[in-house]
Amino acid sequence: MAQLRIALAQTNPAVGDLAANAARIVEWTGRAAERGAHLTVFTEMSLTGYPVEDLVLRTSFVEASLAALEALATRLAEEGLGEMPVVVGYVDRANLAPRVGQPKGAPLDGAALIHRGQVVVRSAKHHLPNYGVFDEYRYFVRGDRLPIFRLHGVDVAIAVCEDLWQEGGPVAVAADAGAGLLVTPNASPYEREKDDVRLALVSRRARESGCAILYVNQVGGQDELVFDGDSLVVSASGELVARAAQFAEELLVVDLDLPEARFGGLGTFETEAGDGTVITVERVELSARPLEPYEPLTPTVAEHLEDTAEVYSALVLAVRDYVRKNGFQSVILGLSGGIDSALTATIASDAIGPERVHAVLMPSRYSSEHSLGDARELVERQGINSRLVPISGVVDAFEKEIELSGLAAENLQARVRGTILMGLSNQHGHLVLTTGNKSELAVGYSTLYGDSAGGFAPIKDVLKTLVWELSRWRNAQAGRSGEFLYGFARPPIPENSIEKEPSAELRPGQRDTDSLPEYDVLDPLLHDYVEKDMGSAELVAAGHDPALVARIIRLVDLAEYKRRQYPPGPKITPKNFGRDRRLPITNRWRETTL
Amino acid sequence: MAQLRIALAQTNPAVGDLAANAARIVEWTGRAAERGAHLTVFTEMSLTGYPVEDLVLRTSFVEASLAALEALATRLAEEGLGEMPVVVGYVDRANLAPRVGQPKGAPLDGAALIHRGQVVVRSAKHHLPNYGVFDEYRYFVRGDRLPIFRLHGVDVAIAVCEDLWQEGGPVAVAADAGAGLLVTPNASPYEREKDDVRLALVSRRARESGCAILYVNQVGGQDELVFDGDSLVVSASGELVARAAQFAEELLVVDLDLPEARFGGLGTFETEAGDGTVITVERVELSARPLEPYEPLTPTVAEHLEDTAEVYSALVLAVRDYVRKNGFQSVILGLSGGIDSALTATIASDAIGPERVHAVLMPSRYSSEHSLGDARELVERQGINSRLVPISGVVDAFEKEIELSGLAAENLQARVRGTILMGLSNQHGHLVLTTGNKSELAVGYSTLYGDSAGGFAPIKDVLKTLVWELSRWRNAQAGRSGEFLYGFARPPIPENSIEKEPSAELRPGQRDTDSLPEYDVLDPLLHDYVEKDMGSAELVAAGHDPALVARIIRLVDLAEYKRRQYPPGPKITPKNFGRDRRLPITNRWRETTL
Repeated sequence: MAQLRIALAQTNPAVGDLAANAARIVEWTGRAAERGAHLTVFTEMSLTGYPVEDLVLRTSFVEASLAALEALATRLAEEGLGEMPVVVGYVDRANLAPRVGQPKGAPLDGAALIHRGQVVVRSAKHHLPNYGVFDEYRYFVRGDRLPIFRLHGVDVAIAVCEDLWQEGGPVAVAADAGAGLLVTPNASPYEREKDDVRLALVSRRARESGCAILYVNQVGGQDELVFDGDSLVVSASGELVARAAQFAEELLVVDLDLPEARFGGLGTFETEAGDGTVITVERVELSARPLEPYEPLTPTVAEHLEDTAEVYSALVLAVRDYVRKNGFQSVILGLSGGIDSALTATIASDAIGPERVHAVLMPSRYSSEHSLGDARELVERQGINSRLVPISGVVDAFEKEIELSGLAAENLQARVRGTILMGLSNQHGHLVLTTGNKSELAVGYSTLYGDSAGGFAPIKDVLKTLVWELSRWRNAQAGRSGEFLYGFARPPIPENSIEKEPSAELRPGQRDTDSLPEYDVLDPLLHDYVEKDMGSAELVAAGHDPALVARIIRLVDLAEYKRRQYPPGPKITPKNFGRDRRLPITNRWRETTL
Repeated sequence: MAQLRIALAQTNPAVGDLAANAARIVEWTGRAAERGAHLTVFTEMSLTGYPVEDLVLRTSFVEASLAALEALATRLAEEGLGEMPVVVGYVDRANLAPRVGQPKGAPLDGAALIHRGQVVVRSAKHHLPNYGVFDEYRYFVRGDRLPIFRLHGVDVAIAVCEDLWQEGGPVAVAADAGAGLLVTPNASPYEREKDDVRLALVSRRARESGCAILYVNQVGGQDELVFDGDSLVVSASGELVARAAQFAEELLVVDLDLPEARFGGLGTFETEAGDGTVITVERVELSARPLEPYEPLTPTVAEHLEDTAEVYSALVLAVRDYVRKNGFQSVILGLSGGIDSALTATIASDAIGPERVHAVLMPSRYSSEHSLGDARELVERQGINSRLVPISGVVDAFEKEIELSGLAAENLQARVRGTILMGLSNQHGHLVLTTGNKSELAVGYSTLYGDSAGGFAPIKDVLKTLVWELSRWRNAQAGRSGEFLYGFARPPIPENSIEKEPSAELRPGQRDTDSLPEYDVLDPLLHDYVEKDMGSAELVAAGHDPALVARIIRLVDLAEYKRRQYPPGPKITPKNFGRDRRLPITNRWRETTL
């Protein structure tokens, strides 16, 4: 056996910020060197950020990525880090003739090994995911190389992200080629309860290949995605050796005992990849001899957050990074006294501090006494900025010009509020946060250009029952402070906002239950319909009320248009609206006519 | 040689309306029979409509498609049409075990041959497009069968749409198998100047395979796509034999002299497809003997529309079908007196008739005298419905509550107008048409939730210079009437709206050129940047001013967020915003820092 100390660099890159991402790679490589690491592995596309979407189709962007990679190699050497082998993700391109349907410029989701100022080997993702949030057949061509580099007597293979998830390809070849360690840069977004899937997968691949696996994952919010980190090290027998924190940057350093390389030959050779393709294995040698034995570090295994804390952390990180990466300094939102805006304000306070949160209280003629009181109570408990802008004068002015009744009159109030928030945003530069939850978004219970007007939707993917659960959980953390908890001494959310019956207050005495079932009935149905893709027969068989199934399916399918115009927001479930669930707007097919 | 009379059914199906689509297939098969056809070929997914997006991932939808196909076969026979072989497109599924990333249920983009009440053979698209407006790796698994049926002594092969565009696969196999005719159901969306590409492709494939080709294409608007029909028949030597109309349903009937089948064997056999896959050829026989010679019909070749007429027809059809397929009866829009809203109103009048078009004139304190006059003049010329709603009272009411200046104050006026239109839409059920053009959309020169509020954006993909060209062209058609021209006796657009200098009129004396270059400078730059994907260096090399290139690229990239929230609108160019051009919102990379 041969020892290696490896640093997993779980970083939070910004898409397109090549200079800052490169600087971070240099800095973290230095930290890895200080801790005595023999190899540092960064995440998928750590140099460019992930996902880059259509940027990758621009020649100038790909050229910038390639130039940044070369510059990075030079700079690492200049800063005395040349001896450290570094695996980084970047965008490369294949030398393919253009053809119909091939992404322009034939981009590759690349991984490179840098050593002594040079890019020693280059490879790229072989299996391209094109499901859920991934559209990679639009953006990349498939890689067909498997690099194996010998480091202190250990053969280390490199494969990228999705290659772990599919049968055949580089991971299968790495096993056949007798690699002693497989390192994988990843950019795998957070999904509620997905973590166990990843560990189970990595363990299975390790056992299949008889090879230890390093899973290095991106962390941070990027548009609608939240990357949770949670990088893993698994032994050849499939056991968890070390684990990084969730939702935080971390340099995880681990010592491994690995099998010594068995094959002598270097150079390239082709091999069947078990998936109908041929992979070129490229063997290089950095150092042939194992290290002198040394005392290993005790591996750290970060404790996993429990479910509610995990979701809350994801939402806070998503808001913080959306604000920061878009260059905003502050946020603004409407505070109604209800639970949705109360939770959204609290997430914002935890994300960027209450001093950068601006609440607007916009009572109407239908607002109840307690609404304004509950909103004021939250402002007071959290110390956020606030102003009062009654809307009745503006609503009256509209109604003097056009006659509106029923839903049209309800929507008008929401649009007046949206216009006030957008006006203050344009005037003062705050990012508008919308406060709609996933349950109401799903059934279309919101006003287009009204409460849905804004730049980011923190609880877009949170069902109403989870809104309550998160609120109670957050209040229970009062007195604690940390990365995702501003140190409020008192519970930050007024208890009355949590306990009272939900209402949009757009007409006298309105209650959500006037037009919707109780949320503890609605939410499980939405979960089964949206996340599990059950059809109406399956939903009825699963115990949901047939009439309700018919009504809710119709509402959800009809709300498609509104959802398409909704602002982005963090994704925390396997199946969100928008990118993940797309119906033609003019579709005439109905799941049920019950 | 053997004769065959074939009917190409260029229909306009509605996505999801299986019953209506099936009824139309029966009706059109009857019409083909009346005209003596021996074979009728419908378009890709003619039974379900195209594109179905996420509907295809629902088990119940796929089952509905399969049931509809069987019912169609029965019904054709019951109605005395059993002897007519009919090729229809539908959604099928492959019998594959689920795996990570495979579309749920393994759907197929199917084509079936129906004869004598039975589904005789089934196949499916082999090459799945995943570029531009297509995302088919999300939705389908690849087909691997090539049916060849012998009809009156001619071997007829079936392949679907994209299979024509790619090398290898069913089309290559059809040639090797000696098919005498290849029929292809298609759903190929309109793009400006794309028609010649299609004819050139079909001609090339015909020459390569030595086999006549029938190209049957869908027609009609479906969400953001407009299908133009323009079905083609090309001889084995690559010459155009017959051509259907653009933008209209048509049953194109053509007589062909085709080679008699040379091979005797029926049944299935496997063959290498030249693209790394194996295709199963399935040979069946409907009738072995050639027909007695008969007098052929003279083929019809529809004249192609010239460019401006073609674009105008696409826009009218898109609006008409969006209104109809969404179940609206009428549209509403803001009429400013400027050219964008004037053209939009005219397109709407041509699409659904002026009696169903509602204009709202919303002058502000900054509106010039001529604006209101020009708007009133258009109302009068077209006889559309109109009402006057001055906005200054509402704007004053807002400004009493919140202090806004500069851009924030300009946006407020646009949002008040948007709120008025949405209120009237909610109250009366009109579809709101937005009036923004592609030039202003590209550079972000519009107000989120203001002029961009609405349900459909007819000129979303039309650059400003083309707006003027279309307006002048439409006025020159005065006195004519037809499928896309309401019979206005006078030019429907006031000349002053076309000729005057463009202005948003959101502050005193404002002109578009205060902040943008002249449109005849801007539009070619936008075309090169957006459609041609040129980088800054290429744009400068192409003769665009370097400082302008830097400024416009920055504006276009920064306007991404607003564009993502824009309503759908007909797509007429190869590269639109939204689906076709996607940048991460928080991207930090800039094409240029000139």
